[in-house]
Amino acid sequence: MLHPDRLFPPDSQTRGLARALYDSVKDLPIISPHGHTDPAWFALNAPFQDPLSLLVTPDHYILRMLYSQGVAMESLGVGAASDFDPRAGWRLFAQHYHLFRATPTALWMNHVLSEIFGISETLSEKTADSIYAAIQARLATDAYRPRALFDRFKIEVLATTDAATDDLAHHQTIRKEFPRRIIPTFRPDASVDAEHPDFQQHLALLAQQTNENTETLAGYLHALRARRTFFKSLGATATDHGHPTALTADLSTHQAERLFERLLKDPSAADAELFRAHMLTQFAGMSLDDGLTMQFHPGSFRNHNRDLFSRLGRDKGADIPTAMEFTRSLKPLLDKYGNEKNFTLILFTLDESTYARELAPLAGHYPALRLGPAWWFHDSPEGMIRFREQTTETAGLYNTVGFNDDTRAFLSIPARHDVARRIDCRMLAQWVLEHRLSETEAFDVLQDLTYRLVKKAYRL
Amino acid sequence: MLHPDRLFPPDSQTRGLARALYDSVKDLPIISPHGHTDPAWFALNAPFQDPLSLLVTPDHYILRMLYSQGVAMESLGVGAASDFDPRAGWRLFAQHYHLFRATPTALWMNHVLSEIFGISETLSEKTADSIYAAIQARLATDAYRPRALFDRFKIEVLATTDAATDDLAHHQTIRKEFPRRIIPTFRPDASVDAEHPDFQQHLALLAQQTNENTETLAGYLHALRARRTFFKSLGATATDHGHPTALTADLSTHQAERLFERLLKDPSAADAELFRAHMLTQFAGMSLDDGLTMQFHPGSFRNHNRDLFSRLGRDKGADIPTAMEFTRSLKPLLDKYGNEKNFTLILFTLDESTYARELAPLAGHYPALRLGPAWWFHDSPEGMIRFREQTTETAGLYNTVGFNDDTRAFLSIPARHDVARRIDCRMLAQWVLEHRLSETEAFDVLQDLTYRLVKKAYRL
Amino acid sequence: MLHPDRLFPPDSQTRGLARALYDSVKDLPIISPHGHTDPAWFALNAPFQDPLSLLVTPDHYILRMLYSQGVAMESLGVGAASDFDPRAGWRLFAQHYHLFRATPTALWMNHVLSEIFGISETLSEKTADSIYAAIQARLATDAYRPRALFDRFKIEVLATTDAATDDLAHHQTIRKEFPRRIIPTFRPDASVDAEHPDFQQHLALLAQQTNENTETLAGYLHALRARRTFFKSLGATATDHGHPTALTADLSTHQAERLFERLLKDPSAADAELFRAHMLTQFAGMSLDDGLTMQFHPGSFRNHNRDLFSRLGRDKGADIPTAMEFTRSLKPLLDKYGNEKNFTLILFTLDESTYARELAPLAGHYPALRLGPAWWFHDSPEGMIRFREQTTETAGLYNTVGFNDDTRAFLSIPARHDVARRIDCRMLAQWVLEHRLSETEAFDVLQDLTYRLVKKAYRL
Repeated sequence: MLHPDRLFPPDSQTRGLARALYDSVKDLPIISPHGHTDPAWFALNAPFQDPLSLLVTPDHYILRMLYSQGVAMESLGVGAASDFDPRAGWRLFAQHYHLFRATPTALWMNHVLSEIFGISETLSEKTADSIYAAIQARLATDAYRPRALFDRFKIEVLATTDAATDDLAHHQTIRKEFPRRIIPTFRPDASVDAEHPDFQQHLALLAQQTNENTETLAGYLHALRARRTFFKSLGATATDHGHPTALTADLSTHQAERLFERLLKDPSAADAELFRAHMLTQFAGMSLDDGLTMQFHPGSFRNHNRDLFSRLGRDKGADIPTAMEFTRSLKPLLDKYGNEKNFTLILFTLDESTYARELAPLAGHYPALRLGPAWWFHDSPEGMIRFREQTTETAGLYNTVGFNDDTRAFLSIPARHDVARRIDCRMLAQWVLEHRLSETEAFDVLQDLTYRLVKKAYRL
Repeated sequence: MLHPDRLFPPDSQTRGLARALYDSVKDLPIISPHGHTDPAWFALNAPFQDPLSLLVTPDHYILRMLYSQGVAMESLGVGAASDFDPRAGWRLFAQHYHLFRATPTALWMNHVLSEIFGISETLSEKTADSIYAAIQARLATDAYRPRALFDRFKIEVLATTDAATDDLAHHQTIRKEFPRRIIPTFRPDASVDAEHPDFQQHLALLAQQTNENTETLAGYLHALRARRTFFKSLGATATDHGHPTALTADLSTHQAERLFERLLKDPSAADAELFRAHMLTQFAGMSLDDGLTMQFHPGSFRNHNRDLFSRLGRDKGADIPTAMEFTRSLKPLLDKYGNEKNFTLILFTLDESTYARELAPLAGHYPALRLGPAWWFHDSPEGMIRFREQTTETAGLYNTVGFNDDTRAFLSIPARHDVARRIDCRMLAQWVLEHRLSETEAFDVLQDLTYRLVKKAYRL
Repeated sequence: MLHPDRLFPPDSQTRGLARALYDSVKDLPIISPHGHTDPAWFALNAPFQDPLSLLVTPDHYILRMLYSQGVAMESLGVGAASDFDPRAGWRLFAQHYHLFRATPTALWMNHVLSEIFGISETLSEKTADSIYAAIQARLATDAYRPRALFDRFKIEVLATTDAATDDLAHHQTIRKEFPRRIIPTFRPDASVDAEHPDFQQHLALLAQQTNENTETLAGYLHALRARRTFFKSLGATATDHGHPTALTADLSTHQAERLFERLLKDPSAADAELFRAHMLTQFAGMSLDDGLTMQFHPGSFRNHNRDLFSRLGRDKGADIPTAMEFTRSLKPLLDKYGNEKNFTLILFTLDESTYARELAPLAGHYPALRLGPAWWFHDSPEGMIRFREQTTETAGLYNTVGFNDDTRAFLSIPARHDVARRIDCRMLAQWVLEHRLSETEAFDVLQDLTYRLVKKAYRL
């Protein structure tokens, strides 16, 4: 079902070299430094329930495409009645599988079905039930429990993403019972964003967890530092920040304190934005102190679909990118920490027009900056090709940090890394055959792109 | 003169498959759901006058390129004296034909000369007169009258674009005398845009045509609904809206009424913009009621050249695109109608940075949204390739709506559809050979891209 | 070391045609109408000092990449102590040479080492010292003095870039002693930008040089005209303008005079911006009078790195692009001079999203406008390919102006022109093999792209 040369150009020279390059990295362990798998899976090691809730419901790409063509969320089991039959949702997915033609979803799903479940038929309305049954049968076996799959996938490091206030109980269990490198990532957005519905609640929780008075700025900052230390103690090497814009600020202590006071009472949208901006610079300072690598991915308009949000809540695949500005926005933070060699800030974007215009020039100059890989909607063959074409000549390959799968769809992790490796091999092969770099260089740099750069950037 | 494999990559595998794909669609009828041909041609069926006024003067791409290199509009017959000799204009075009190298204009014009007029020489200063004479001779024959060409081109549907206040007299004649599917499209811009010089006049005309009092908002809205019904009675299945920005709004009736009052007296630019924005949401509501598909293409700065505008008036090829924003701008409309399955809003852009950033994510989520094809300046081989590369992986192929020729150059319609089909075949062939989709899938989806999706989106 | 078919695609048909095309232009003389070489080199003809200060320190691409990976400027000799050993800086460069893999820097540097210095080893930590010694030895010979290299490089025209207040003493010497076409370019930015630290000083210098009272607007404008005449007398055919934004304005004399008064006292940022905008239109008017071609390249945020700027001053490779807007910004200037056939304004951008959206449509319409080549960070194989792909179909090839090397790295000039020629050959070959233009047309247009268009646009 899967062609061994998929994603390689058909001409025999390029394909031959791409294949040789691929052979040199295909068996390297997976480093997944940024993702959204659930630590409960590895802590509890319970069998996955059914094909629908394992492969379809958690995958926003699938939900959004089906929804865009008129399939109701409820008919896929999202917000559905308690007697909902997952088999019906799976059938609906299979009926609409043609929608995914030429999308990365099809590449990944075919990989999962074929490589992980050993299914040799193509998913369609006709094969929906038999494939469902085949998957369900395998899920009941020990070989398909989370820990067994983790080992089977040859994952060397897997980072989850966790609220600053998360108790990391599952991570504590994992450390005791499943000695693999599954580590948390410190994501404080809800504790920083006064427009988040749970902001006050997160502040209260922070106070409780750290015995700090989070109603003062000083206490609040101490609490955040304490939580970072706690995350580090459970293996964290990075933080993660997602904001509506890339704005950073560097307020005086006095300004920041007055802003924080307003924030606790009746924050305006401008106050909330300024505080997020200021806190990015604060977090950069903390990173310089405690060594956690900082990730920043601004630019998504979250929960854009009003009706869906009011009926089903956050995170239903309705986040839409907006235009980004980095050059002016990052200056306050970079003025303070951009020249630090012991601080790493990894930037992501959903606005590809910033690749060549702002991000590659910034990362190609500031010692603290690195470019995260093609992100979210751009995590696809063409998206990755555009990323390399538009950043390499200015920022080089060594200011990038390898691949992130950024997924909650655990079973798709090997497929996603495989696609990324194939695209890198394809591009390197083309460059070698155009004599832009030598074959020796290509084999060496490929090890960097697949394995070394990610470990270095995330201090793994 | 025309190579049978034009626009296909030279390597034999890709070319072979692209050709096989092309063979499966090259003879499908043309669906032209959005264009600017003149219904008078088919109502009156008079012979076309001469090569210049048929092939050069109405084509903005040709006018603008020649003008950019110093050729005066008047010397091409635009705003020229009454004794102007079209032969002289044609010669000037032929002398400058090298300017069109590697542009779509050359692809289309060569197709027209070779396939429609059977001319085997290349256009140049030397061949200008003989080609002129050959075309002129053919235009005098019945086989080159508009209706004969319409049938020869195998056009199944041809939509024109017509002001909301158009009496559609030619369309009425066509229905009686030439029973083909030539249908109007409801374009109310001049009745909605208070900055349009003829706005007040259009309102008066609307009142007269519908017996409504268009000096009240309610009467104005009734009048527009009545005109839509009239357009539908003559076959219209779609509306078309071109605004300077993508802004939408959803005002309360009270707000809208007060805005409308100001608009009739002394509208500010902000009032005019807000009213256009509000009316888009109103038109979406009307579309949900009467089933007309809604097309929206914002972002052109019209009549940018002050001198040309003051001397020769509107629409002389001096429209220049501007940067676009959709994510925030469309939200008011989408909040109200974005989740409707019985409403279709087709979006176009002149700002390609919005393809991957905003349009594909929006169309890949909202059931009401579809992506129009590469538009205007992007209606070219590279433009179409970028469109597919930047939208497919996020929005899929099934949230697109086939090809629009969007032209007033009637004779170029077969050439334009041919280029679009070839580019789709080329891309599908490449994807198949890279194992991104199967050959069977490619042949099937190609039928969708060429024929089925456009009929569905426009309810044809 | 250099493959004769570098940058050509590997398939034999395309490569064969690209090579044939390349053979037809590879020996054409170099026209370098825009760059930053130092006229002192050719006036004094002193030997170049050492490999580091010749090949590394003046090249911003090299400085920025090394700096981004933690190499201190001082360790490369920038702002270093007087006993700094250039050999140590060269070694550091060699150690980090892998950073430049797949970047244009590697293409150019390999070309320089191999073709100009006859070195057959690859630069690396191991070969650093022997390559240094080999270069140093050659630099001591007459064949490697500036004038000998100038002739060896077959440069027909070389333009430098010079402040409006430059005395052009070196140019005067060159005219006497080295009768080659090395010409100045009039760059008045520091005399126009009230935010430039030396603005007042430049005004005083202008007054002194021209005997005009530059404290009145009329005197200031007279002084600038006088300086242009002086530049023309030494061969200048062009002016060059770099602003933060693309804004133009056309103020009344009264408005302009009052603005100029404020500017001399206590200019606000808005005043400075408006004056720059107004002066662009003034300079366009002067160009129409004196025939100097006008170049405009807005959009760089200069000296972005605060610490580097305060320690080491301007121009240390820390300029970062910003998003650009042309359609509205250029209108005041275009309203006044856009339709002039005897005025040429060449536009450059660092924001590639404007190529297809604004620049190609503008240049494809206004007689006065031409598109400069892929600029600065985009002066690379992929950058040039994107430029052609995104501008050709709308603006054609004849609204472009050939290649600019825009470099202060004198020895890289042949390499840079070679890369540009190869990329044009590659694109033309692909288009011919896809039957987008004929082989005859390709050979002809290639002469235009390499030689004729640049001479015409710059009136050389």
